[in-house]
Amino acid sequence: MSVEPLPTPFVAVDRQLMLANLARMADHALAIGVALRPHVKTHKSPAIARRQIEAGAAGLTVATIGEAEVFARYGFDDLFIAYPIWLSHESAHRLEHLLTGTRLRVGVDSAEGARALAQVTSPLLSVAVEVDSGQHRSGVEPSRAGEVAAAAADAGLRVDGVFTFPGHSYAPQAGEQAAVEEAKALATAADSVRAAGLDCPLTSGGSTPSAGFVQPGSLTEMRPGVYLFGDAQQWELGAIAPEQIALTVHATVVSHAGGRLILDSGSKALGADRPAWTSGFGRLLDHPQARIVQLSEHHAVVDFPGRLPALGSRVRVVPNHVCNCVNGADTLFLMDDGQPGDNWPVAARGANT
Amino acid sequence: MSVEPLPTPFVAVDRQLMLANLARMADHALAIGVALRPHVKTHKSPAIARRQIEAGAAGLTVATIGEAEVFARYGFDDLFIAYPIWLSHESAHRLEHLLTGTRLRVGVDSAEGARALAQVTSPLLSVAVEVDSGQHRSGVEPSRAGEVAAAAADAGLRVDGVFTFPGHSYAPQAGEQAAVEEAKALATAADSVRAAGLDCPLTSGGSTPSAGFVQPGSLTEMRPGVYLFGDAQQWELGAIAPEQIALTVHATVVSHAGGRLILDSGSKALGADRPAWTSGFGRLLDHPQARIVQLSEHHAVVDFPGRLPALGSRVRVVPNHVCNCVNGADTLFLMDDGQPGDNWPVAARGANT
Repeated sequence: MSVEPLPTPFVAVDRQLMLANLARMADHALAIGVALRPHVKTHKSPAIARRQIEAGAAGLTVATIGEAEVFARYGFDDLFIAYPIWLSHESAHRLEHLLTGTRLRVGVDSAEGARALAQVTSPLLSVAVEVDSGQHRSGVEPSRAGEVAAAAADAGLRVDGVFTFPGHSYAPQAGEQAAVEEAKALATAADSVRAAGLDCPLTSGGSTPSAGFVQPGSLTEMRPGVYLFGDAQQWELGAIAPEQIALTVHATVVSHAGGRLILDSGSKALGADRPAWTSGFGRLLDHPQARIVQLSEHHAVVDFPGRLPALGSRVRVVPNHVCNCVNGADTLFLMDDGQPGDNWPVAARGANT
Repeated sequence: MSVEPLPTPFVAVDRQLMLANLARMADHALAIGVALRPHVKTHKSPAIARRQIEAGAAGLTVATIGEAEVFARYGFDDLFIAYPIWLSHESAHRLEHLLTGTRLRVGVDSAEGARALAQVTSPLLSVAVEVDSGQHRSGVEPSRAGEVAAAAADAGLRVDGVFTFPGHSYAPQAGEQAAVEEAKALATAADSVRAAGLDCPLTSGGSTPSAGFVQPGSLTEMRPGVYLFGDAQQWELGAIAPEQIALTVHATVVSHAGGRLILDSGSKALGADRPAWTSGFGRLLDHPQARIVQLSEHHAVVDFPGRLPALGSRVRVVPNHVCNCVNGADTLFLMDDGQPGDNWPVAARGANT
């Protein structure tokens, strides 16, 4: 059977590379004695989550109640919303519905947040206190974890322990230092929880760039996400080799204007992430010297050394940040030996509420 | 009837402000004698496009065959794909299907692109030659427009004229200069087309920041999109006043970590656009001194002078680039006098192929 090429831009996943990345992180977690609870915001795909569980993942991490709802609907029954959600009255109803069959751990980083969460009571519900290990996003100071944990316990919630996201690992040469700071923050936080008279069985952390540097004994659980696919950020950080990158956006060369390559993979396909330390708005997998120097919704403008690929030809683009790329797609097109195979729905696309 | 608040983050559109923006641009186009063909990639909503047509728009501009398909399905029968699409064999089938009832103009910026497009023949199909007026994205040099137009005509295509997107207007104080360059580029391009022995009835341009500076006689048609909603870029460029901004993302304060405001409107809700000249990753409509200094998928970290809004309270966030924000949403929640009214589907969300 001869199949017509898919219209571009589309998101292609090399199945063998993805499964290899999946297995490598599972093996790594096993080797260092840390439970792996992958973050599914990266792929939003039940088909992939199933393979992560089959490879030994202890459960899944999600970012929102909406993602929890989608994965619960697909039968995943042990979820961690690693986010300090503010439980409004109406989101309480959603959580109650989830808790009819799903074991759910929820993040908190304030006493008020814990008390709002305690609107819901269920033996399937627990909380973990988020602490800041250096990214300076959400999370209390580690020394104040006990205070939040005590408020949660007083409100009737079961406290599993503490967690952090060492997101400051997303910078050149920052992975190891972030892992050291993660270990320190979680140790301080766990001490603080115990000083408040509570157990602290959980110390959860992890990110793709810091995963290789996890400090011995620092984590009981890790939650990387991007490792599965890789992206241009991880490539440039050295956290993944280009030949391991499993997800690309296939794009068509639509113009040679100005002697550059203009591709139809704009920000609506790639995502617009562009940290200052990246070399451009994404990379071309098969042309490592090329740089996407300008990105608009439907144009990627590429400085391309040497002879330009012909108009109408196709190239494989590695997005800077694969999570936002996937969130713009309805379907992942699985590729087997470079040929289109299964289509997997991005079932939790847009489930960001 | 008491309604529960919608879960955040969600995209809210103030109906009266949107209709006022819509009418203002329609009046402006009428006053300067230029046909208005608004770009619907901004809203991707047939309900809004209908109001634009009712207000006098001459037709719609779309970015992709996919958007054309959606709007054609909703009955819009005069569309301009203002993009140099490369017509593959399989996209030719899609175009042929569209051309059963829709008048369609398609962009070209190369002789090869024109010949590929000429796979399709239809009295409903025409082309316009894209020229570069200073953004340096797609589009040939204006003086070479005639060459491309001649190739298109030789291939059997009807040539309407020339178009450009003066996207370099998206920079501080750049609107007027971009309009001047747009006028010059289109005049040169039209001369070049006529020198090739072809008529050139169309000179199409326009962008929201340059719309107020259109040079007399330079355009027969303009294609702004963002004017309808406004966004933080337009606010900071002075192309829209904050009190005219019609679209905001309603977000919940989830944390006060580090003495800052942490909102649940991350890049998956706002889009990750962050041009160097913007003051942050978006603005807070009701707190003009606040700045979103850090953005990740589910966190907007806000430097907020003064007393922080309470945990669990809601704020209205103006995204930097409204087009990418809307492309992440399934629904626009219309607000009437601050209260939720209709829900409009973003029918062409993801139709980016």
